Amino acid sequence: MDVVMIAILCGLAAVAYGVVTSRQVLAASPGNARMQEIAKAIQEGAGAYLAKQYTAIAVVGAIVGVLVFVLLGPLPAAGFVIGAVLSGVTGFIGMNISVRANVRTAEAARQSLQAGLTMAFRSGAVTGMLVAGLALLAIAGYFRFLTGTGLDPTGRPVINALVALSFGASLISIFARLGGGIFTKAADVGADMVGKNELGFDEDDDRNPGVIADNVGDNVGDCAGMAADLFETYVVTIGATMVLVALLVAGADAARLMTLPLLAGGVCILTSIIGTWFVRLGGGSIMGALYKGFFATALLSVPALYFATRTIFPDMTATISVKLGDAANAVAAPVDFTAMALFWCMMVGLVVTGLIVWITEYYTGTGYRPVQSIAKASDSGHGTNVIQGLAVSMESTALPTLVIVAGIIAAFQLAGLIGIAFAATAMLALAGMVVALDAYGPVTDNAGGIAEMAGLDAEVRERTDALDAVGNTTKAVTKGYAIGSAGLAALVLFATYTEDLRQFFTDVPVDFTLSNPYVVVGLLLGALLPYLFGGMAMTAVGRTAAAVAQDIRAQFREHPGIADRSVRPDYARTVGLVTAGAIREMIVPSLLPVLAPVIVYFAITTVAGQGNGFAALGALLMGVIVSGLFVAISMTSGGGAWDNAKKVIEQGAYGGKGSPAHQAAVTGDTVGDPYKDTAGPAVNPMIKITNIVALLLLAALAGG
Amino acid sequence: MDVVMIAILCGLAAVAYGVVTSRQVLAASPGNARMQEIAKAIQEGAGAYLAKQYTAIAVVGAIVGVLVFVLLGPLPAAGFVIGAVLSGVTGFIGMNISVRANVRTAEAARQSLQAGLTMAFRSGAVTGMLVAGLALLAIAGYFRFLTGTGLDPTGRPVINALVALSFGASLISIFARLGGGIFTKAADVGADMVGKNELGFDEDDDRNPGVIADNVGDNVGDCAGMAADLFETYVVTIGATMVLVALLVAGADAARLMTLPLLAGGVCILTSIIGTWFVRLGGGSIMGALYKGFFATALLSVPALYFATRTIFPDMTATISVKLGDAANAVAAPVDFTAMALFWCMMVGLVVTGLIVWITEYYTGTGYRPVQSIAKASDSGHGTNVIQGLAVSMESTALPTLVIVAGIIAAFQLAGLIGIAFAATAMLALAGMVVALDAYGPVTDNAGGIAEMAGLDAEVRERTDALDAVGNTTKAVTKGYAIGSAGLAALVLFATYTEDLRQFFTDVPVDFTLSNPYVVVGLLLGALLPYLFGGMAMTAVGRTAAAVAQDIRAQFREHPGIADRSVRPDYARTVGLVTAGAIREMIVPSLLPVLAPVIVYFAITTVAGQGNGFAALGALLMGVIVSGLFVAISMTSGGGAWDNAKKVIEQGAYGGKGSPAHQAAVTGDTVGDPYKDTAGPAVNPMIKITNIVALLLLAALAGG
Repeated sequence: MDVVMIAILCGLAAVAYGVVTSRQVLAASPGNARMQEIAKAIQEGAGAYLAKQYTAIAVVGAIVGVLVFVLLGPLPAAGFVIGAVLSGVTGFIGMNISVRANVRTAEAARQSLQAGLTMAFRSGAVTGMLVAGLALLAIAGYFRFLTGTGLDPTGRPVINALVALSFGASLISIFARLGGGIFTKAADVGADMVGKNELGFDEDDDRNPGVIADNVGDNVGDCAGMAADLFETYVVTIGATMVLVALLVAGADAARLMTLPLLAGGVCILTSIIGTWFVRLGGGSIMGALYKGFFATALLSVPALYFATRTIFPDMTATISVKLGDAANAVAAPVDFTAMALFWCMMVGLVVTGLIVWITEYYTGTGYRPVQSIAKASDSGHGTNVIQGLAVSMESTALPTLVIVAGIIAAFQLAGLIGIAFAATAMLALAGMVVALDAYGPVTDNAGGIAEMAGLDAEVRERTDALDAVGNTTKAVTKGYAIGSAGLAALVLFATYTEDLRQFFTDVPVDFTLSNPYVVVGLLLGALLPYLFGGMAMTAVGRTAAAVAQDIRAQFREHPGIADRSVRPDYARTVGLVTAGAIREMIVPSLLPVLAPVIVYFAITTVAGQGNGFAALGALLMGVIVSGLFVAISMTSGGGAWDNAKKVIEQGAYGGKGSPAHQAAVTGDTVGDPYKDTAGPAVNPMIKITNIVALLLLAALAGG
Repeated sequence: MDVVMIAILCGLAAVAYGVVTSRQVLAASPGNARMQEIAKAIQEGAGAYLAKQYTAIAVVGAIVGVLVFVLLGPLPAAGFVIGAVLSGVTGFIGMNISVRANVRTAEAARQSLQAGLTMAFRSGAVTGMLVAGLALLAIAGYFRFLTGTGLDPTGRPVINALVALSFGASLISIFARLGGGIFTKAADVGADMVGKNELGFDEDDDRNPGVIADNVGDNVGDCAGMAADLFETYVVTIGATMVLVALLVAGADAARLMTLPLLAGGVCILTSIIGTWFVRLGGGSIMGALYKGFFATALLSVPALYFATRTIFPDMTATISVKLGDAANAVAAPVDFTAMALFWCMMVGLVVTGLIVWITEYYTGTGYRPVQSIAKASDSGHGTNVIQGLAVSMESTALPTLVIVAGIIAAFQLAGLIGIAFAATAMLALAGMVVALDAYGPVTDNAGGIAEMAGLDAEVRERTDALDAVGNTTKAVTKGYAIGSAGLAALVLFATYTEDLRQFFTDVPVDFTLSNPYVVVGLLLGALLPYLFGGMAMTAVGRTAAAVAQDIRAQFREHPGIADRSVRPDYARTVGLVTAGAIREMIVPSLLPVLAPVIVYFAITTVAGQGNGFAALGALLMGVIVSGLFVAISMTSGGGAWDNAKKVIEQGAYGGKGSPAHQAAVTGDTVGDPYKDTAGPAVNPMIKITNIVALLLLAALAGG
């Protein structure tokens, strides 16, 4: 049986795990009639939103798909469709299990914290395994199909098809991430603005007309949007590694080495499944329970990756040669390496992942200095809370950057550019487990909402709140992880870009040195993209949230009986309003990274010739990651820290709930909301799509 | 008479203007006894702080000066001392005129808006002309002295001495900018936290023990710190242009062309002085009055720069050749050019300056969409105010980036790298006028405080408030202008770095292409610096502000009579506390950009060899500007917009003073304070110092 087939079987195992675990989740009690009624409203809202969102995206996708077909041909167009459809499917299934697990988690939490944790984590694990499994199936399956038709695995048709598959996944995921992110935070901020600040309601008070929209948002943003994002990150990282191998590695080793990322992904799905069994409280903290699962997966992945490598390269110390070509003279020319060195590079990827998890927990966990400092600053007022939160968010970029830099250096010293690609691949191989940790968060958040609205005991709410506080950290972890892997993948994508350039346009000299002003121009324009995109996303949340707040105020004006519960608020009206707003607002910012590379290339080529056009475009790709890494990490860690500083105060510090410090902390949380759940996480697919559009542009310019 | 002598005479003219105008300011009435008493307290506080600050800096400066002497020799050490001392002198004199003009502006504002404007602007003009004049005197004077001793103007001793002079100016200015920035915002935020939020006082209520410290802060931060910063920017930009000419231009033209930046600076001092006479209300807006001065200067500078160029190069169409050396093969090799082309590059610099002024006014002025959108968002609460403010701050980077990019492309197309250098030089040549517009702001801010504390008519306060609102915009303009010029100067400094490398280390191959992972590592580490620095600066303000708030609360506890004015608060105690805090907090962040280049070079050299050490260091220089540009512009424009959104509401919008919208706007203003006046503006000297340390490191490694 060939290696790709094993990878496909591992992908199918992930899907089987998802089916079995879903059944376990669905078999649990969905609680009393009131709870089911609330959960149904959330389900309907989420389903209706995703249906509309994917319809809107389908229109854009169809246009782009036709363009891909015309410019690049049928195989890339088919790849595009596979990537796009499976990305959508992942989000859809994740949302569907999440909206059913929420009420069951609330019910389970009546029993015990452990029961609540198990239910929520199982639901998260379904999403996690589906993300990794479907992503691996997409890329391994299509690769097997293509090579099965007799195409050379390292030839241009296969490369273009893989890049187009990544493009499909990325294009859908930026819309899903941003649309879902705008939905969830517009609903959250709008509901809080009127509910908490003006009416003095608690979170999730069922008299608040925005409360269902807020809970819908957790599912369409934090679950479906996140799943699409990680699906995209997985496909792009594994795909880019395969493409780079095809471009750089010489001889028969190239085709064999192209299967290693697939097998690495496959075996790590198995270790992730085993890791899920280790998630258990056992007297320790909730975070500790989740850590057990993560570390079990990471540790088991060490031998798994070793055997995967040895399966493909039985002699792990044999030299794998690279093609040199024009690069022979460069200081950073590709270097020969061994399979053993690649194994060590994958270990570097695992260590980087572990360190990023640990650093993110430090910056967003309730027990450490950063969150405590924001809680303390809340005691002096709204302004100092926000100042300290911004300070923490900026500072939180330092250690992850140093870890990424150390990872780049270590992997490069071991096996050159290919080594960096495999370090990134190993990071993504853990995606099943990482997404499982993340997707558990919105389920507990929803469970808390349902417990509150259904009037369950305060004890239940306390349990779901404790689970949710950890969810804030795991959410930040996934985002730090995704953007961290992007830091490594950026080098891979850039190397692919320059190799493509060399192959397609042998006669156009391109100067990528920092002394070339067009490189600096590209860096500056690339660095601008995350800022402009972030500013647009924040404005979109603010604008839609203001519309939500107006609607909630209007409902109270029209039906004063809502306040004493004699009239039921019109939840669906608010959901409909947020749906329309999110879909309208997601279009323009999402097109920014699609159009920017094309515009910059043609503008600079017109002014300064094609060579400088290519130089500026390449530098734009580097600029967008250099700036985007910091924008994304600062926003996601800072937002998580703000949220948990509020939780620290709600647990009684600085006067507890209702104190002035709590009000200041609510302000910080509100600011952090679009930071961590809208603008920040969408930067990752934005970076990827910019890179992939550039690669497709080269292929299109070269005539497909 | 030689050209350098004309430049020196122009510098002396600026000093003469300063002396004459100072006398005019001092001749005006300092108001009644109460006003003089308050002004005296501010003077004493500011004087005491600056004395302590410069003492602390002198210790660091002496150590670094000895290092420069040991590593590079006596001439660079002397240059270092000249740059450092004159930078300090500029700040000191600026502060001294400012603390005397404040009370006279309050007195003049009793008469009319025009009288207040004239007094405040004259004081600003003194600082502006001294910044430009002393900076030009420093560099032209030392250049003339060096060449007068028979040294080759394009030789290494002169180059090293000029770089060391820039280093002295930069080192002092980062401490002054940051120390002053921490002082002013810690006092402002701390005083507001207790005064406005807890006690319900107005701004500048004389019962607030922090009120004098707040007013002292305007002088030591917004005036002295800003003056040191612009002094540094002027010296570094003109100096780097001269050094680049010495390194790149061939033959006898090099020495002649080195004098053009000096003469350009000189003639623009004259046009700036003439421009000050055009600042007059004449029925229009206050901003319009200031614009008249700016545009008169800019327009007069067109013929002035033309004649300056033609004086040095009578045949403006003759070719000026560059040395090619190793760069001959590069796509972006230096190109030959004409004096006429340089004149057009200087016009590019003027246009870039004008556009940045206009864009900054759009983003921070009270009459436009951005500020209005923040004011509107305040109506929904604290959180939405901050979200919209952050959105505006991110968006505000877009147009300046496009302008800078267009400027780089235009200047490069006209005359290559040297063209970019001259565009930056022309920007800085207008510094006298730009600083005059800026330094007028803190004077009106203080005048308002004095009017309030001395119980002058509400009408006077309204006038000073109107003047102050424009001051928020002009402050943001100066910062956008300084960082914008840094965007152009970055290329010049990087080119100087690579040329130095080529000359000093001919046998070490360095690969600056983006494909080199060590270049990416350098870019990431460089991009980190503004984030880490900004995070530290924000934390410092938060921590010191909290100490101020505690002190104010303690004073009210110890002497309850302060509330009914039966006891006078101990203003000096709060001033002393802020002084100690600011000086303690400024040290570590200021050393970050000094040490980072050295650490990165040695770390990467150890791991990957000297060639990659140089590559990473060079990339770090580019990374710090690519990221710093966005951090600085977003912070300074965003902060200005928040401040003016509050002013819009205080003028009656959304319920006016005391409304919930106003409280939200106060929160935004508080957040914007350290953004725009501490962290944001200090990024500019931070970028410069990183670059200069790298140049000095090369010189030291090469053995002086």
